[in-house]
Amino acid sequence: MKKHYQNIVIGAGSGGMTVAIGLAALGKEVALIEGHHVGGDCTNVGCVPSKTLIHLAKNFKDGANPDEVLRETIRKRDFLRDKETEEVKEVENLTFIEGMAKFSAAKTLDVTNSAGETQQITAENIVISTGARPRMLNVDGLPAERAMTNIDLFDLENAPKHIAIIGAGVIALEMAFALQKIGTKVTMFALDKRALMSNIPEAAEAIQASLDKKGISTYYGATAKIYDEASQTLTLTQGDNDIAVDAVDKVLVAIGRVRNIDSLGLEQAGVKSDPRMGILTNSFGETNMRGVYAIGDVTSTSAFTHSANAQGRRVVQRIAFPFLPMAKKEPLFPNATFSDPEVASVGLTAAELGASCHQNTIKRIRVDLKGNTDRAYTDGIEEGFIIVDAVRLTGRILHATIVAPHASEMISFFTLAMSQKISLYKIYRLVYPYPTFSSGILKVGDFFMRETLTNLPKEIGAYLRYRFARPTKK
Amino acid sequence: MKKHYQNIVIGAGSGGMTVAIGLAALGKEVALIEGHHVGGDCTNVGCVPSKTLIHLAKNFKDGANPDEVLRETIRKRDFLRDKETEEVKEVENLTFIEGMAKFSAAKTLDVTNSAGETQQITAENIVISTGARPRMLNVDGLPAERAMTNIDLFDLENAPKHIAIIGAGVIALEMAFALQKIGTKVTMFALDKRALMSNIPEAAEAIQASLDKKGISTYYGATAKIYDEASQTLTLTQGDNDIAVDAVDKVLVAIGRVRNIDSLGLEQAGVKSDPRMGILTNSFGETNMRGVYAIGDVTSTSAFTHSANAQGRRVVQRIAFPFLPMAKKEPLFPNATFSDPEVASVGLTAAELGASCHQNTIKRIRVDLKGNTDRAYTDGIEEGFIIVDAVRLTGRILHATIVAPHASEMISFFTLAMSQKISLYKIYRLVYPYPTFSSGILKVGDFFMRETLTNLPKEIGAYLRYRFARPTKK
Repeated sequence: MKKHYQNIVIGAGSGGMTVAIGLAALGKEVALIEGHHVGGDCTNVGCVPSKTLIHLAKNFKDGANPDEVLRETIRKRDFLRDKETEEVKEVENLTFIEGMAKFSAAKTLDVTNSAGETQQITAENIVISTGARPRMLNVDGLPAERAMTNIDLFDLENAPKHIAIIGAGVIALEMAFALQKIGTKVTMFALDKRALMSNIPEAAEAIQASLDKKGISTYYGATAKIYDEASQTLTLTQGDNDIAVDAVDKVLVAIGRVRNIDSLGLEQAGVKSDPRMGILTNSFGETNMRGVYAIGDVTSTSAFTHSANAQGRRVVQRIAFPFLPMAKKEPLFPNATFSDPEVASVGLTAAELGASCHQNTIKRIRVDLKGNTDRAYTDGIEEGFIIVDAVRLTGRILHATIVAPHASEMISFFTLAMSQKISLYKIYRLVYPYPTFSSGILKVGDFFMRETLTNLPKEIGAYLRYRFARPTKK
Repeated sequence: MKKHYQNIVIGAGSGGMTVAIGLAALGKEVALIEGHHVGGDCTNVGCVPSKTLIHLAKNFKDGANPDEVLRETIRKRDFLRDKETEEVKEVENLTFIEGMAKFSAAKTLDVTNSAGETQQITAENIVISTGARPRMLNVDGLPAERAMTNIDLFDLENAPKHIAIIGAGVIALEMAFALQKIGTKVTMFALDKRALMSNIPEAAEAIQASLDKKGISTYYGATAKIYDEASQTLTLTQGDNDIAVDAVDKVLVAIGRVRNIDSLGLEQAGVKSDPRMGILTNSFGETNMRGVYAIGDVTSTSAFTHSANAQGRRVVQRIAFPFLPMAKKEPLFPNATFSDPEVASVGLTAAELGASCHQNTIKRIRVDLKGNTDRAYTDGIEEGFIIVDAVRLTGRILHATIVAPHASEMISFFTLAMSQKISLYKIYRLVYPYPTFSSGILKVGDFFMRETLTNLPKEIGAYLRYRFARPTKK
């Protein structure tokens, strides 16, 4: 008794929901399979509760109850989860199936529900959006109830006294700043040599200054050695030294994520994957098997909700309007870290930049908020900048990173400018409201104009000489 | 003994400083004349102290001392004023002259300093940037020491217990929200029928909801009748009713501004002005008299620091590089009100929209933050939206208004899109970081696409029929 659907989406996270609801709205029959919670990581253990916590922490007043902040975070998360769960079940053309899916053959899935019952379903199109889970790390001597990932973190009803955070990426930083604000002592350590390895080093420097000022202890190139329950001491190893961190009552592991692809039976479906890249797809989300798609964290493109959604939108168009032309290139995916200040960037990474252009063709412009924007003065902002890498002479923007209180709201300016190939010459002519951090963008334009016009022969020479030159990798 | 300069700038506010420092940096000789404080309204009694106060008020904790907030605002203002005053006197090629300037003939100024001494100076180019001052209003019975404008407000060292604010524009609103946060009771009233008359009514509605929630009393179509010092009662008249507002210890008058042009001797210089429009200029800031320019608040274009600066930049280019081509049209001037939430807009006003296009050619898209952005959910935001007016079918953007916590940082996206004629079709393809308020922009694109594609024949018909039709004024 195989049931057949036009389309099956595996995983009801943001990406999967985008595809399922998008196709259903276009009148296509969809089965949406989810083994845990509707909303996926974003709603349940990611963006939604973390941003709720960050917002509540920002407005936390001395003397208030930090446990109340955590409970309110849980309450708001649960409300949204229930609402999304209800809503998805009422979508026309959409069948919600509770269970875990595994390919038994190409285009055929076995779905096993929580009661252990298995049904077989088939479809013309199958979209894999099963996401990722936190990578776990065992610390010698650490009792299970003291160890957490972002999955347990948002079920916590009592604020830790002293949390040790392992990792220095997006989740680690966001939680370090938020928990510090509600009165938790925070010690952060990572094997990496700095915070935010996926952003430029200047961003890490600015964030480090902020971490230091807030009294968040950080250790880089460091690993957990042992936890002693009797004394609640966590011992770290950094180089040849052991560092004893006292009175640690919780440990948050935030050292990266593992794609949820191992138990999908990809071999049976003939879908190719790679340990480093996840499920292999082209820019339309198509795998090597016709009619099987993959989006979001299971792919290598980007690990953000907004990129999963964007990939989902492209897959909807591909399935629903296969003959409509679609840009071959994926759109630009910005990234944002909701630290304090925020970090956001778009465009080529430092590595991509080094690999694609000769360094002499690139002009890096850095405008610090302090000293260049009066808003930094009125708001007492010390850390923060706008950094733009642009092609010399032409002013074409290749990359922008913003560190600022609302960097996540400012970055779309550059996403628009880059995707529409708007040069710094044009950005120089715009008027920005005063006093804002965005007015620093004008200074970026100013700087580029001044440097270019006052050294025009040199700039033209360098551009002509190096524009087709091979990149010099460092 | 007339002293002659290449260039004279009258007024060392933001606009004047932009011109004076800009010309001096290009090696041009400049005399900068200022009768009061360097920095003008922006540094001394405008943007800088108001944004400092707004920032401190936002972070005000229960039990803290509100007077400390006011004193810190003064301290930061004074520091910046002193710094700017020092810096301007050290600029190469720039002569700073203390005094009030008055034309005695074309290109000739009498400058009288505070000691009463007058010198005569002449120049090839004279730039008038004397700004504006608050319009005053006398309330019967109100002692002078209880009445304030923004000029006195930022010298106040003790927070009022209950302030009555006359006016409902930018200054009135910014101060109402900020003072309420530091514990001052606020009553706001205005002759206008709503707040923010220069923005669309939807913005006023959102702000009104926020005013109401914060317990700021507002009366529209209301005027001050009399103040009784014995009982500290301010009586308002609203229609046929008198309203007694009790225990008012300060009254802030914020009912608009008067251009500082009366004592300039414009007649002697032959420079044309108009009671309603101020000094008349073309888009390059040129008055009817060759070599005499006017920028900023003395003109009719815009009353914001950023617009004065933008006009100043154009005048610098016009004077320093007269043969370089320059865009005939002034750039788009965005506007921003730092209320809570913020209001920012760019593009055609409602009146300009009505006068320039037939209403059937325009599609208005409104995306409320609540319900459309998860950030509104995590941050508990009730009020706020993105409203875009675009040309039907083509998606060309004519106007955007944003009401959101950081609207002032979000609006430049639309300034860029509009100035580069980027349609909503392209904006629909961008990826916005999640979860941000900016992701509401994607919903604007979605909405436009859906409405257009699902009603294509109707949309094409309406566009073709009305695109050259005469506007229907309401």
